[in-house]
Amino acid sequence: MSKQELVVLGQDAESGTCRPGLVAAPLDDGQAAELAGLFKALGDPVRLRLLSMIASRAGGEVCVCDLTPAFELSQPTISHHLKLLRQAGLIDCERRGTWVYYWALPATLDRLADFLRTSSTSGAGA
Amino acid sequence: MSKQELVVLGQDAESGTCRPGLVAAPLDDGQAAELAGLFKALGDPVRLRLLSMIASRAGGEVCVCDLTPAFELSQPTISHHLKLLRQAGLIDCERRGTWVYYWALPATLDRLADFLRTSSTSGAGA
Repeated sequence: MSKQELVVLGQDAESGTCRPGLVAAPLDDGQAAELAGLFKALGDPVRLRLLSMIASRAGGEVCVCDLTPAFELSQPTISHHLKLLRQAGLIDCERRGTWVYYWALPATLDRLADFLRTSSTSGAGA
Repeated sequence: MSKQELVVLGQDAESGTCRPGLVAAPLDDGQAAELAGLFKALGDPVRLRLLSMIASRAGGEVCVCDLTPAFELSQPTISHHLKLLRQAGLIDCERRGTWVYYWALPATLDRLADFLRTSSTSGAGA
């Protein structure tokens, strides 16, 4: 039996809990404000590159010392962008000695993916 | 004037192959700039509410005359937000007589959902 059949719009496939999907119902003011803040954090090329560098890293975390050299930007500017990603709940970090290490927070990313998805077929190959 | 042709990054939505997912690899400059533009379009509460009103409408399209009364904003302001959503390829529209009718473009929304998803559990089960 295909798992696709079990996916209900507006519901998480695994937990069955309600999620405010875009196609499920109009957002209220509070939902829109909160989600817009998350998308705004993603709405910058430097932040998106940083997030993709962090989220795609094998092992799951990245030293800030490995992020900065990829950009022609100052360390404070990179730190500012990382702070905005962290405040949005898209990444988290921990200082260890000299350096700060960053990792992605899959729950937030998957929540946004669930919100945007209009169908339950993508990825299923049907 | 359909914006569906804007979807050029990665592969076609129907093929299900080789999408530039956030966890797959770091984005290059061009990918980051293009995707950031899409997320920026979503990074505003009014635009998110408009998009959710359009995408969740039974029948698939909404008259602008049904959108405006939900906001304490002028018609030109609403039209500006709708224009930004349309330029991002998230919605499209058609004028019929007095009114303009809007509908969501699922390919763009699902593409962003695919990009953000960190796991393949939703729908696919693999």
